[in-house]
Amino acid sequence: MGIWLEGRTLAGKIRDGVKEQVEHFRGLTNQVPGLVGILVGENPASKVYLGTKERTSQRLGIHSEILKFPGDIEKASLVEEIEKLNKREDVDGILVQLPLPPSFNPFEIIALISPEKDVDGFHPFSLGSLLWNQDGFKACTPLGIIELLKASNIDILGKRVVIIGRSLIVGKPLAAMMTNEHATVTTCHSKTENLPRVASEADILVAAIGRAAYVTPDFVKPGATVVDVGMNQLKDKNKAKEFFGEDEKREKDLQEKGYTLIGDVDPRVIEKAAHLTPVPRGVGPLTVAMLMRNTLEAFRRRKKFQ
Amino acid sequence: MGIWLEGRTLAGKIRDGVKEQVEHFRGLTNQVPGLVGILVGENPASKVYLGTKERTSQRLGIHSEILKFPGDIEKASLVEEIEKLNKREDVDGILVQLPLPPSFNPFEIIALISPEKDVDGFHPFSLGSLLWNQDGFKACTPLGIIELLKASNIDILGKRVVIIGRSLIVGKPLAAMMTNEHATVTTCHSKTENLPRVASEADILVAAIGRAAYVTPDFVKPGATVVDVGMNQLKDKNKAKEFFGEDEKREKDLQEKGYTLIGDVDPRVIEKAAHLTPVPRGVGPLTVAMLMRNTLEAFRRRKKFQ
Repeated sequence: MGIWLEGRTLAGKIRDGVKEQVEHFRGLTNQVPGLVGILVGENPASKVYLGTKERTSQRLGIHSEILKFPGDIEKASLVEEIEKLNKREDVDGILVQLPLPPSFNPFEIIALISPEKDVDGFHPFSLGSLLWNQDGFKACTPLGIIELLKASNIDILGKRVVIIGRSLIVGKPLAAMMTNEHATVTTCHSKTENLPRVASEADILVAAIGRAAYVTPDFVKPGATVVDVGMNQLKDKNKAKEFFGEDEKREKDLQEKGYTLIGDVDPRVIEKAAHLTPVPRGVGPLTVAMLMRNTLEAFRRRKKFQ
Repeated sequence: MGIWLEGRTLAGKIRDGVKEQVEHFRGLTNQVPGLVGILVGENPASKVYLGTKERTSQRLGIHSEILKFPGDIEKASLVEEIEKLNKREDVDGILVQLPLPPSFNPFEIIALISPEKDVDGFHPFSLGSLLWNQDGFKACTPLGIIELLKASNIDILGKRVVIIGRSLIVGKPLAAMMTNEHATVTTCHSKTENLPRVASEADILVAAIGRAAYVTPDFVKPGATVVDVGMNQLKDKNKAKEFFGEDEKREKDLQEKGYTLIGDVDPRVIEKAAHLTPVPRGVGPLTVAMLMRNTLEAFRRRKKFQ
């Protein structure tokens, strides 16, 4: 039976550290970091994510704004809005909440952000800097995963890391970061042949594919560390019982919301793994904490505060 | 006994295609692509590489210049020179020959090149675009490897690719390109534990580490395709005989130059592999051919020629 690796405690520590620094700089300079989130269209999940980012910013003393635009906004107008934010002295971080409506190429839009304000780390310049292993903003979820492993004293150097999923948000930047951390990294995806066998070579297995409970115990080497980045809705009460056993919290979720959250990893993997991050309260809280840290960092670099 | 995969024929075809296009556009517009190489210091290998690039450019009708600067040039002067080249209308491609003298951070210097002229594909914006799987200049050696495999009808999709080496020049961009080609990609390096075992999982094994004959048959799954990116000098006559058997060309090399070239792969791997690229005349010729193609492409995009 493995250990649940919760990200909550670490995320709380990181937020406390950011809050303290924000207060420190406010005391010294009467300035605070500013973060602007851009929402295009009406994606309900995007609204929830942006809401969390805004509330967390406010709690840490970071000035936060959400700019909302209709899904059919002209590209030229969106370009103009981003250029205005690039110039605004009081804005340190700009993030475009993904996904954008299908009429936009997210690459084109994100490439408009000034790299010095790219706190999400998705700008091509930031991603290229990561391949160069040079300073630059690093994507928040992969960065949170690395921080969680380090804080949990789980070795990365020389270890085999298998990442299932090659998204720009998680898989690709995580592969680069893990390589920079001297892991032997394998990236898998929907076209991978014999995925369970490849996955079971991992000392550290990361699932980021968006398929509920896809990673079953046969994907996992005994004693491996398993990181679950998924966030899926499970609506079936019987399946919930199968995955979680008798669990009051889950039953309450199902009754009140009609679903409970489940990751990309079957929770019964805990019986085989040395560590598994739960869903929720695993890597999720770290993503927002890293965004806060990146925003503070953008502020310090732009203002040249040590 | 496997097949030697020579890059020469494909490289010749690619160069012919570029030459034809250059002539076509010259006839139409009286303009030709322009490529400038920057050499800082006196690295003899760098001079050889730049010389090859210049001669090939000239043969294809591409205007070519090499700017030579002393190894102790001030950073500010180098910055100014690159900015001048960025502005020059007749310059489509700019490359900084690596390695730079240790006083320079290559990242900082290469990031000065205008991404639209980054024909080497090492600018962080180009590398980030590669992670996004969007158009942009792709590093020449990895691009050449992919082209060679495709031209040889070797499947990549779903296959296991193991890359030994995580350099910015080969390993890292190749891992991204292979992932975009739907391979299952593993990147190995000096910190990888049990490297021969990891390597022997590969359907396609790429060696790019700069260690003579490091990859021995025990690294290779029977029937694998092996790509040798190394270029090392072998000076020992007995070892040469051991690796190459009785070989007039090698003996002549050793007598006349004092060395013969050997890759990162023990040539006896040919007995176990389905394919192996020879050194020389394997992937080497493709690197320069790809640089020519990138330069033509830069010219077409900048001039908006279809």
